[in-house]
Amino acid sequence: MGVTPQESATRTRIQSMGQAARKAARSMARADTAAKNRALRAIATQLDRQRAEVMAANRRDMEAGREQGLDAALLDRLELNDARIDAMIDGLHQVAELTDPVGEISDLIYRPSGIQVGRMRVPLGVVGIIYESRPNVTVDAASLCLKSGNAAILRGGSEALHSNGAIAACIAAGLQQAGLPETAVQVVDTTDREAVGALISMPECVDVVVPRGGTGLIERVSRDARVPVIKHLHGVCHVYLDDKADPDKAFNIALNAKTHRYGVCNAMETLLVAEGLAEEILPRLAAAYGDSGVELRGCTATRRILPACLPAAESDWREEYLAPILAIRVVADLDAAMEHIARYGSGHTEAIVSEDYSRARRFLAEVDSSSVLVNASTRFADGFEYGLGAEIGISTDKIHARGPVGLEGLTSQKWIVLGDGHIRQ
Amino acid sequence: MGVTPQESATRTRIQSMGQAARKAARSMARADTAAKNRALRAIATQLDRQRAEVMAANRRDMEAGREQGLDAALLDRLELNDARIDAMIDGLHQVAELTDPVGEISDLIYRPSGIQVGRMRVPLGVVGIIYESRPNVTVDAASLCLKSGNAAILRGGSEALHSNGAIAACIAAGLQQAGLPETAVQVVDTTDREAVGALISMPECVDVVVPRGGTGLIERVSRDARVPVIKHLHGVCHVYLDDKADPDKAFNIALNAKTHRYGVCNAMETLLVAEGLAEEILPRLAAAYGDSGVELRGCTATRRILPACLPAAESDWREEYLAPILAIRVVADLDAAMEHIARYGSGHTEAIVSEDYSRARRFLAEVDSSSVLVNASTRFADGFEYGLGAEIGISTDKIHARGPVGLEGLTSQKWIVLGDGHIRQ
Repeated sequence: MGVTPQESATRTRIQSMGQAARKAARSMARADTAAKNRALRAIATQLDRQRAEVMAANRRDMEAGREQGLDAALLDRLELNDARIDAMIDGLHQVAELTDPVGEISDLIYRPSGIQVGRMRVPLGVVGIIYESRPNVTVDAASLCLKSGNAAILRGGSEALHSNGAIAACIAAGLQQAGLPETAVQVVDTTDREAVGALISMPECVDVVVPRGGTGLIERVSRDARVPVIKHLHGVCHVYLDDKADPDKAFNIALNAKTHRYGVCNAMETLLVAEGLAEEILPRLAAAYGDSGVELRGCTATRRILPACLPAAESDWREEYLAPILAIRVVADLDAAMEHIARYGSGHTEAIVSEDYSRARRFLAEVDSSSVLVNASTRFADGFEYGLGAEIGISTDKIHARGPVGLEGLTSQKWIVLGDGHIRQ
Repeated sequence: MGVTPQESATRTRIQSMGQAARKAARSMARADTAAKNRALRAIATQLDRQRAEVMAANRRDMEAGREQGLDAALLDRLELNDARIDAMIDGLHQVAELTDPVGEISDLIYRPSGIQVGRMRVPLGVVGIIYESRPNVTVDAASLCLKSGNAAILRGGSEALHSNGAIAACIAAGLQQAGLPETAVQVVDTTDREAVGALISMPECVDVVVPRGGTGLIERVSRDARVPVIKHLHGVCHVYLDDKADPDKAFNIALNAKTHRYGVCNAMETLLVAEGLAEEILPRLAAAYGDSGVELRGCTATRRILPACLPAAESDWREEYLAPILAIRVVADLDAAMEHIARYGSGHTEAIVSEDYSRARRFLAEVDSSSVLVNASTRFADGFEYGLGAEIGISTDKIHARGPVGLEGLTSQKWIVLGDGHIRQ
């Protein structure tokens, strides 16, 4: 297949951004905590001062979006207002408050040879972030990369082009004021799709890419990337109500995990109920779900207890509804629940509700998901709730970072050795 | 391009091995430390008992290798003898002695919401290892994967087919005796190159691949892999002798780093010497290198001090000689040394020799390599020297694992949450 002149120009442009980022990454790795925090606060100040310019740029994007007939949800995510800009500014100050992970030395021990060996936390280098048309992600992603000593190349959705350009100007000004290279955060200023293709195929310039967005984008990036990918795919989260559960905890957690918010990846999508508890808890839960307008789709045993429940198809067990719909399955016991999770789950987040020590211990050890909870709602699987301060995303991969990824996930550890003239014998 | 019937058959065979491995991985993740150690010791016993069979299989490989005209180095790596089988047996017992990383819970803290959040170390799942015709790697790799609770698919060099088959029988018998699934360690029994292609393109069955071998293999695997890769590319290691170095330490370390062993990835390939020290130390070093038969290739300033030294070409700064050859460059100072390392280094291992506190501190923080040493020989960059017990390889990547990769590098961490009926407000 041929390459068009435009594709070729885009590729050249992204490559030169990559080379600039690689160079900036060396400065960023050396930057001390004070300089990085100064930059974060200066960007916040710039955003506040250039509020009018950022809003004007966003209005251009919104008008173009309406003309293109973007749906209401997309337009909502695209829109900036005073409250959202305030939230971006707050976020920058919060990241400035976080402990700097870079340079932390751990596990420094003496070895029999006499050398001291330990590990030092270091930035990854250049992080590429590919995301949808949510201008606030531009600031969030930039701030986390900056604080963790990385250079970033940000490629937001094409609908947010002007908004991101205005935000990029604030970031560049803030970096400059703090004495850090402006190229430490670069925002891709072309809507050409080839930009993504170029960004994910430059291992010499990009150390990792984080795609954030729809499944199609993430699958495409994973398939075509020539650099490591930190990605979040599906969130088919389960709650298992054991027959040794405290019924009130079971009720509260099953309700909260589904109804606290519907469109989030850590919402429960399938409820597994032990045979011994089903008759007691399901009618009570069904009434509460009914009050919240949640549609129930159950297995045969569920429908015997809840005759009004719709039948669940095989495909329901794999479905990430992100909506007021819940699949319910009655299972024999803990083993059957874990078998169901292993077969249908997405490895994101699963919870057990049980007062039985040994079953809780087994569930924790044996369920292979990025977050495993005992007697707590799946909604806690979140960077802020875990104390990371902020998250660049949630990883459903097993390599490098798993679950909510914060500053630490944007770093690596190198080995350090301290000697006094030691040589190998 | 079409796929031949043989390629298609190989792909089907590897896929069914992958599915079996995925299933075995669940059992291995649950296996307790005692069972895994029992298996390691049972494999050692089997290897000892079936020594005659393993040696006979190896003789078949050696004969075929000689007929094919393999070179002496390859034949040496392929050959098994009593001492090498003893070393494999010792290695199994050593891995049994290592602390089991699986299930370790760290950083368990209370959050303001009342939940306890921590991380639990868990196996990666299925590890694919692709290596050359060294039958001892079959046992090393199997033992590390087994101890870390992973299932393994091992693809050794085609020249070692019979040796690996005989070793695989010992591993299977040992696993069975310990009550673990025989499919926890599978050795690919075809020499078809398509096996590698299949193994690295099954993300649904394989969680990570570790290629060990020549640069060509590793580059091919990195380029084509659809699963994460832990890889070791080049080892262009540097020692920088600062003008504040203790001359004796500088002399000893520069000599040891080059001459202790030549064919290893952590041997020094380029020596950087500060201007202020060059006149004093280079003649003394050149004499010692001369005694060891090391060929020197120097920059202009080096050759002014050592007129007999050959001139270094630009390409010498990027060369991993793995031989008694050393490139030498005189540099102005620490900054020039770090600039050289950033430009020409491979990110493997670099050392500084200096008594200056601030320079040592800067070198440690700013050099972006998997191992950074102060006043110690680069030869210490090794899993055994670092206390890992054994290593599956050395990673020059930044993602997931960096430097020597031991049991911990074959694991990941999931988040765990302990609550008491907690829900999100």
